[in-house]
Amino acid sequence: MYSHEAGFLHAQGRAPAWLEVPQDVNALLQPIWPGSAHKPPADSILRVGGLTVQEIAAQVGTPAYVLDEADFRGRAKAFADAFAEAFSPLEGAHVHYAAKALITVGIARWLAEDGLSVDVCSGGELEVVMRGGIPPQRITFHGSNKSDAELIQAMEVGVDLIAIDSLAEIARVAQVADEGDFRPNVMLRCSIGIEAHTHEFIATSHEDQKFGLSAADGSVEEGVRRVSSHPRLNLRGLHTHIGSQIFDARAFRQAVQRMADLTVSLEREHRVCFPELGLGGGFGVAYTTGHDPLEPAEIAARMAEHVEHEFKAERLAVPHVTVEPGRAIAGPAGITLYTVGTVKPVSLDGGFTRLYVSVDGGMSDNIRTALYGADYSATLASRRSSAPPRLARVVGKHCESGDIVVKDEYLPADIAAGDILAVPVTGAYCHSMSSNYNSVPRPPVVSVQDGLLTVLLRRETMTDLLARDLYA
Amino acid sequence: MYSHEAGFLHAQGRAPAWLEVPQDVNALLQPIWPGSAHKPPADSILRVGGLTVQEIAAQVGTPAYVLDEADFRGRAKAFADAFAEAFSPLEGAHVHYAAKALITVGIARWLAEDGLSVDVCSGGELEVVMRGGIPPQRITFHGSNKSDAELIQAMEVGVDLIAIDSLAEIARVAQVADEGDFRPNVMLRCSIGIEAHTHEFIATSHEDQKFGLSAADGSVEEGVRRVSSHPRLNLRGLHTHIGSQIFDARAFRQAVQRMADLTVSLEREHRVCFPELGLGGGFGVAYTTGHDPLEPAEIAARMAEHVEHEFKAERLAVPHVTVEPGRAIAGPAGITLYTVGTVKPVSLDGGFTRLYVSVDGGMSDNIRTALYGADYSATLASRRSSAPPRLARVVGKHCESGDIVVKDEYLPADIAAGDILAVPVTGAYCHSMSSNYNSVPRPPVVSVQDGLLTVLLRRETMTDLLARDLYA
Repeated sequence: MYSHEAGFLHAQGRAPAWLEVPQDVNALLQPIWPGSAHKPPADSILRVGGLTVQEIAAQVGTPAYVLDEADFRGRAKAFADAFAEAFSPLEGAHVHYAAKALITVGIARWLAEDGLSVDVCSGGELEVVMRGGIPPQRITFHGSNKSDAELIQAMEVGVDLIAIDSLAEIARVAQVADEGDFRPNVMLRCSIGIEAHTHEFIATSHEDQKFGLSAADGSVEEGVRRVSSHPRLNLRGLHTHIGSQIFDARAFRQAVQRMADLTVSLEREHRVCFPELGLGGGFGVAYTTGHDPLEPAEIAARMAEHVEHEFKAERLAVPHVTVEPGRAIAGPAGITLYTVGTVKPVSLDGGFTRLYVSVDGGMSDNIRTALYGADYSATLASRRSSAPPRLARVVGKHCESGDIVVKDEYLPADIAAGDILAVPVTGAYCHSMSSNYNSVPRPPVVSVQDGLLTVLLRRETMTDLLARDLYA
Repeated sequence: MYSHEAGFLHAQGRAPAWLEVPQDVNALLQPIWPGSAHKPPADSILRVGGLTVQEIAAQVGTPAYVLDEADFRGRAKAFADAFAEAFSPLEGAHVHYAAKALITVGIARWLAEDGLSVDVCSGGELEVVMRGGIPPQRITFHGSNKSDAELIQAMEVGVDLIAIDSLAEIARVAQVADEGDFRPNVMLRCSIGIEAHTHEFIATSHEDQKFGLSAADGSVEEGVRRVSSHPRLNLRGLHTHIGSQIFDARAFRQAVQRMADLTVSLEREHRVCFPELGLGGGFGVAYTTGHDPLEPAEIAARMAEHVEHEFKAERLAVPHVTVEPGRAIAGPAGITLYTVGTVKPVSLDGGFTRLYVSVDGGMSDNIRTALYGADYSATLASRRSSAPPRLARVVGKHCESGDIVVKDEYLPADIAAGDILAVPVTGAYCHSMSSNYNSVPRPPVVSVQDGLLTVLLRRETMTDLLARDLYA
């Protein structure tokens, strides 16, 4: 006999250890939602930026990426203020927003207005932030394999800094500078043997990855020699970036220590003095309640302490510092709204049943779950439910079994087609890595604030998808 | 002292077991290259479709997806012919190209001309194949979470079959049919407890994935009952799809056996007779010489044998069969051309050095390496080298350490900026999953044949990227 209902009530899939059965399945777990997100107890309908999810869906449909503008700008300001304050007794610090996390011309305008600097790592990102009015003096150009066209573009607009990533690139930068009579400021990105991710970091001498000049094999030293000897290249300092989603502050301390050691040995050999020190980003955010990220003020205070301690210990001049948060600003400011379609209880071995909740997007708008095994959370956003919590898996509409948005989440057991589901912390690396898999047009990116919705990127259409097809 | 050169000559990274040091680093390992690909010994320059890689790059630049039209159409024909022949003593078989692997209007035209049927799983894919002239009678509409709009679209154009994926979807399909006075043919996609991937398959009663109605928990039976009782829905049969990149033919046998068992029990209970049987796709292709795929003729012959044996053993009427190769047709027909930029030897622990070869594309045009840990191969395509082979890793230009295109490959030790590198077997799931990560425009998709290049999808431009940005 067919009887889904039995499975529906009794059996449950196995939940991961960090995921607790919620006391109230309607409640928002506040630390992972944007500042303006709330659900009034009366109706439990999610509001963000002063708009209900129904109001947002009525204006732009679903799926939709929704940015809480005040939250985004508030996080950017929190980083800027925290680093300004913590480094004010030293030589100061600048916060660079890492555009790769999420960038549109409208977002670049916010950053321009708020005085942030920006990191870009392609000609496309440079074009977008310039259109948003970021002054070139506040732009650093990164990238492990810049094209000549990108180097020319960067020097023509006059970006503040070019982060050189390899010995080979020194010659290319020099050639472009020679040919165009440019005098670029450059940093050398250093690979210092620290790989940090989430709760662990590895400190070795070598890293098996493509970025940077190795400190251990002498490439940094050779790079300093080559750059210093070139009359058009102005070496402003060293840069490193040790990983992403870092929660262990000791990794940053280790990084500062190694950069100070490196600076000491280079000063002794080459009589250099570096006014700048780039410490990269990688500040972890809480995707779920299983994560406990550091606050900007704490990161800034610790980094300032480390920089002061390590550089003074080595009797080095304390440099001006840059840090590059991307995810930590954009990630928690964004949520994705989906409409639920198929809801399917799937029997598993051992008498368990997993509730598969399909939404109208998926791996095309959020590849992170499939790509990194990332954990996300979700909430029923469009109504109050009195049903008990039920362990569910949120999946997409794509023809692929790995098309998972949220691996495990407790949702009301009566979740049904037509409900709006909200997934938090999707502001970073979701739209920026989105695809048209299965010829699915990409969702819009909108910002909300004080009851007003602004479309930053409109929804993609089939006309957009067919624009490149010369047979359409 | 700085000395890359020492590392360059002596140390090597560790190669995976399947990767052999090539006798001739200029040679193409033929089974993984499209039919027209060859390198004349005189210059070792790769030709495909009668064009050198330089001629292709001169016309459309790099990176570029290049399809060998004759190879693509030949593979499609090989499947069509093999299944027609093997199933001619039975009730026949149809080959449906799975559009999700790679589809453009031009490719749909080839399929239309060559008489193939097509599977789509979104309104967007349906739009593209219709524009290419595929008659609706040769289209099946798949998908685990079709929207109402997609169901209406599918019924309005009159697709041959709609594959229903859940009990919930039966009611939606019925409602759309009622409201629009449609009489769709439908199949029920069944989850039969076989999960097959590459060299292994798991046979259980339950599968922990989103697709299909479960045979084990009675959902298929309930689905048959519901569909049969609806006057507008014409139930044509059952469908299953057991996985992807399958090399073990026993998995297909197991699938046919389970589908026959399922049919028997349904016939006994419900006096149904299914004229159609969908056996899905998943036929593995060789991405590297480490893979040994089945030929279409072998797959067809075995499947015909299994269908005859299992259905006759159960005294069932033998159904007409459909299969759905996507990757097996598009994958090996396509290559990607890249231009080499930064080449960087990176010292690893233990005295090893890995040569990182950066190209002008990366995870935005091929996410499969990062997403699935997929193996690929590569060759220096634009010149002959007399340098010894050197183990290398081909990486992209994106700001991410996971941005790897080819994890391990022997390339000539003198590989250098400006060289054109070709990566084979990128016809499937590379363009279709491509993104604009780092605001990088997507490469063109071109076809080549008899010295002629045809642009199917033109290169994306910054204008395209900014078209959705309302502040640009």
